[in-house]
Amino acid sequence: MPKVSQEHRQQRREQILLAAMVCVAEEGFHKTTMAHVITASGLSAGAVYGYFASKEQLILAIADQALGYAASVLGDVRAMDPVPSPVDLIEFVTTGLIQRAEAAPVDITRVVVAAWAEAVRDETVRSAVAQRFGQLREELAEIVVAQQRAGHVADEAEPLAVAKSLFGVLPGFILQRLVTQDVTPQEYAAGYAAMRPRASSLPGS
Amino acid sequence: MPKVSQEHRQQRREQILLAAMVCVAEEGFHKTTMAHVITASGLSAGAVYGYFASKEQLILAIADQALGYAASVLGDVRAMDPVPSPVDLIEFVTTGLIQRAEAAPVDITRVVVAAWAEAVRDETVRSAVAQRFGQLREELAEIVVAQQRAGHVADEAEPLAVAKSLFGVLPGFILQRLVTQDVTPQEYAAGYAAMRPRASSLPGS
Repeated sequence: MPKVSQEHRQQRREQILLAAMVCVAEEGFHKTTMAHVITASGLSAGAVYGYFASKEQLILAIADQALGYAASVLGDVRAMDPVPSPVDLIEFVTTGLIQRAEAAPVDITRVVVAAWAEAVRDETVRSAVAQRFGQLREELAEIVVAQQRAGHVADEAEPLAVAKSLFGVLPGFILQRLVTQDVTPQEYAAGYAAMRPRASSLPGS
Repeated sequence: MPKVSQEHRQQRREQILLAAMVCVAEEGFHKTTMAHVITASGLSAGAVYGYFASKEQLILAIADQALGYAASVLGDVRAMDPVPSPVDLIEFVTTGLIQRAEAAPVDITRVVVAAWAEAVRDETVRSAVAQRFGQLREELAEIVVAQQRAGHVADEAEPLAVAKSLFGVLPGFILQRLVTQDVTPQEYAAGYAAMRPRASSLPGS
C-alpha cells in the first residue's frame, strides 16, 4: 500500500465531504445514500468507506463543517473591541454567514436546513445537532456577558437565555434568504433595532 | 356511486391530510410517497387519489394547514386591544404555536421543518412556501403599523422590514423547541426584551 501523506488524506476527506454536501443539498439527508456520495466524489467505494464508515459518520462530519463556519463567524465577533451590540451582532453574523455560504463550493446553509429536518426525524442526528446548537449558544452567551458589561444587555438577564434568543434569529434569516430570497443583513438587523423595549401589554406580564 | 355529503368529504380529506402529516413527520417530505400515505390513511388508493391527485397537491395542502395554524395565531394578535409590543407578540405567538402543536394529533411544527427542507430542494415547493411566508409577513406588517401608532416600533421603520425580523424569530424558536428542547416562550421573549436599543459599534453603521 502506498504511503499517503497527511495533507493528501485531508484533501481526500474534504473531497468526499464536499461531494456529500452537494448530494444533501440536492436530495436531502434522508434520501442521500453512500452510493450517491461515492458516485459524486469520483472515488472508489473502498476509498470513501476508508474515510467515512457510514452515512451517520458523514452526517456528523457535515454538521461539524456547518458548526465550523458558524463558530468562525462568532470567533470574529469575539475578537471585536468594543463588543458589538446585539443588533450589530445580528448584522455582522448574518453578513458573515452569507459571505461564507457564497464563497464555498456548495451553499452550506442549504445543507444546514436539510440537517434540521433530519434532526427532527432522527434521534441520533437530533442529539448531535443539539450538541452543536448548544456549543454555539455557549459561545454567544460569553459574548452576551461582554455585552452586559458594555451596557448593551440588561444586567439581570441570564446570558444563556439571551443567547438562545440571539441564536434564534439565525434560522429565520437563513430560511428567508433561501425561500423568499428577499432579506439583507442590514434590513434584518434594522428591523430588530426598530423594536422599542417592552412596554408590557399582556395581562400579568 | 353513493352520494357523499360535503361534511363527509371534508372529514375524509382531513383523515388523508393527517395520515400524510404523520408520514412526513416520520419520513420527511422527500421520502414520503403516495403509497405510504394510502397505507397510513387506511383508505383505498382510489379514495386517496380522489382527494389529492399527486404528492405535490398533498404538500401544498399540508403547507396550507401549517399556514392556517400560524394565521390563526396572528388573527388572535390582531384582535388584541391594545396591540402588544414586539416582545409581547413574540411571547404570545410562540405560546400559541406550542398550544396548537400540542393539541393537534401530529405536531405540525415537525412537518413545518420538513417543509422548509423540501422548499430548499425543490423550486415548486420553494415558490409555494415563499408565497405562504409572504402572506404571514404581510399580516405581521399590519400589526407592526399598529405597533408604530402605539409607540412600540420606531416611526421611520418600514413595516414589512420589521415584519421580516419578527417572523425571523419563529423558525429559531420552533427549531430549538424540537432540537435542544430547552426553550420556553417566556424565556425566549425575555431574551429580546433584555437587548438594549442599538448603540452602534460597527464601522460606518
